[in-house]
Amino acid sequence: MFKPRLYAPGPVEVPPQVLEATARPVVHHRTAAFKELFLRTREKLAEVACVPGDDVLILAGSGTAGFEAGLLACVPKGTKVVGIDAGKFGERWVKLARGYGYEVVTLKLSWGRAADPEAVRTLLKEHPDVSAVMTTHSETSTGVLHDVQAIAEVVRETAPDALFLVDTVTSLGVAELRPKDWGFDGIFSGSQKGLMTPPGLAFAWLSERAWARTENLNPTFYLDLRKERKQQGAGQTAYTPAVSLIAGLEVALDMLLHEGLENVWHRRETLNRAVLEGAGTLGCRPYAQRVSPAVAALYVPEGVAAPDIVKGFSARGMRIAGGQDDAKPVLFRPSVMGYADRYDALIVVAALEEVLLELGQNVSPGQGLAAALNVLG
Amino acid sequence: MFKPRLYAPGPVEVPPQVLEATARPVVHHRTAAFKELFLRTREKLAEVACVPGDDVLILAGSGTAGFEAGLLACVPKGTKVVGIDAGKFGERWVKLARGYGYEVVTLKLSWGRAADPEAVRTLLKEHPDVSAVMTTHSETSTGVLHDVQAIAEVVRETAPDALFLVDTVTSLGVAELRPKDWGFDGIFSGSQKGLMTPPGLAFAWLSERAWARTENLNPTFYLDLRKERKQQGAGQTAYTPAVSLIAGLEVALDMLLHEGLENVWHRRETLNRAVLEGAGTLGCRPYAQRVSPAVAALYVPEGVAAPDIVKGFSARGMRIAGGQDDAKPVLFRPSVMGYADRYDALIVVAALEEVLLELGQNVSPGQGLAAALNVLG
Repeated sequence: MFKPRLYAPGPVEVPPQVLEATARPVVHHRTAAFKELFLRTREKLAEVACVPGDDVLILAGSGTAGFEAGLLACVPKGTKVVGIDAGKFGERWVKLARGYGYEVVTLKLSWGRAADPEAVRTLLKEHPDVSAVMTTHSETSTGVLHDVQAIAEVVRETAPDALFLVDTVTSLGVAELRPKDWGFDGIFSGSQKGLMTPPGLAFAWLSERAWARTENLNPTFYLDLRKERKQQGAGQTAYTPAVSLIAGLEVALDMLLHEGLENVWHRRETLNRAVLEGAGTLGCRPYAQRVSPAVAALYVPEGVAAPDIVKGFSARGMRIAGGQDDAKPVLFRPSVMGYADRYDALIVVAALEEVLLELGQNVSPGQGLAAALNVLG
Repeated sequence: MFKPRLYAPGPVEVPPQVLEATARPVVHHRTAAFKELFLRTREKLAEVACVPGDDVLILAGSGTAGFEAGLLACVPKGTKVVGIDAGKFGERWVKLARGYGYEVVTLKLSWGRAADPEAVRTLLKEHPDVSAVMTTHSETSTGVLHDVQAIAEVVRETAPDALFLVDTVTSLGVAELRPKDWGFDGIFSGSQKGLMTPPGLAFAWLSERAWARTENLNPTFYLDLRKERKQQGAGQTAYTPAVSLIAGLEVALDMLLHEGLENVWHRRETLNRAVLEGAGTLGCRPYAQRVSPAVAALYVPEGVAAPDIVKGFSARGMRIAGGQDDAKPVLFRPSVMGYADRYDALIVVAALEEVLLELGQNVSPGQGLAAALNVLG
């Protein structure tokens, strides 16, 4: 018997008290009870996103819906935008923008690389007329955390009129993220990652200068942030909200705020580093040049196929992610960004030891665990 | 003490076993377990929609997302379409289409009226070049069930090339609906009505001839039925699915299929008629010319304000809907389309008796209940 354990970079393990809240009887969305729940949840979400008091919009949809809504809300179609494409999700936003007729200039990086702010500067000097710069913060496909604070500064200096739009799907509630202090114009995220809630909700925040550009633009009918902002400020939504998921979200936000945001960031960074260090002693090098706390992206040791590692975890009831596209044979990605404590990090390393032994690697039991414990203190 | 009871035309009362399923630990969407759940659920959904074996797509979003996805998937922008506008939702699809640059000809009816198939014929004779006809089946805002079977026939006869797209948000799993036998080209619905699941899922089905027209069209990035069809046939989705809601949906579909679709339709028609007849003896006339089983749309008696009736129900723990827009002062709308049996219909009538008495109406206690029981048998 193995307990099922979700150690994938989303959806993540959801705390039982969050699951319980999603299973409460459905509250009608036109009642005072929902309005209060919704306004409270929005307020807490804004705190977790470090934009206290601001409008963070909650949509029924996945994270992709949030990014689409955000781009179309404040960047005119047909204009030139820069997309930082360093993995599956950076690539997605480039495709999204091309599909809508934006002229997209890409900063294309090989997988595992972090965007160099100076390379962004060089590109923006060639294209000072861009209307927006799009990037992921935590690129889940490669485990890279881009230095969005430094990139934001470069954007402000080099292309001061460009909006800086950031996919924070696996960084919100996971890595330090200060959209206002750092001068972002938009963040877009989802419920099933650092916010420890089942999938089905998207989130969007825009800066005041981004909101000022939303006039006269044509977003889609369903994903219309201006329409949502008008409704959500009054505790309503443009279309029927996913009430049950919102009830769960509030409980998860309470947990994060109770622990304290900086503690949460610290915990997640430590747990992820423990997995990386433990795996390192077992011959698995980190894949990411600049590590995101959302996921431990790891190269397989010589002679091991990544899908076999994923299968080995699976045989123990554990779901981790493999690599995508070209990285499939060499990359595996356990994640402890969900409802996880130090013992989860140890479990991941213990299972990795067992799996590598099974696959014929020269591992002495406890070797990875010792390294992980050294990080965990 | 009053138990909370949801008698609104959506979201509806969700069975506890469905709520329980939504609260199970989240299953990762790239696992065999999810794939099986998803394929099973799609198959059952297709049965409930009377399109067994066909692709019914499941999206994370509200019903509006489904209709937007469907229209943009198979009807070229800029072409002429007919919209039957006989209430809040018919009006929404007209706005949606206008927003995307379709030339929309409306069949505008006063609220409470059902679309006359012959009026549709006359309109289509003037506009034989339309690419699509859009209507609601059950217009929730007025309680009308349009005769979509007859309208479909008229469309086929008068404008054989036009696609017939039907909003079935409050008819799917509620009223008789046979999209294939009746010659529809698309139905679009949501989870929180007849399917007794919390809000957050949209559904879309297209006919083969509608699918054949999806080539070279530009839907939105997030709501792209072609992309979804390719993925969903293999048990996957284009973007992270709302796993928990899908788990709940399967349980609800099992309940409906176990009862038998025709029995479900019969039950819902009977319960709704019991409410209407009971209310009728209390001086509340039906608002709808042709009654939808999804909702008992009722005129207030002379001298009573509809919001006071809604408040009276609310004081008893019951949520019903009032009227929208101009109908606000005169219309109230209890609904027993959710998880409801004969005793729920009686409860609604009993509460209405009490509320009308409180509001000074001349009602003898039990008078409405006797009429309702007469219907229930």
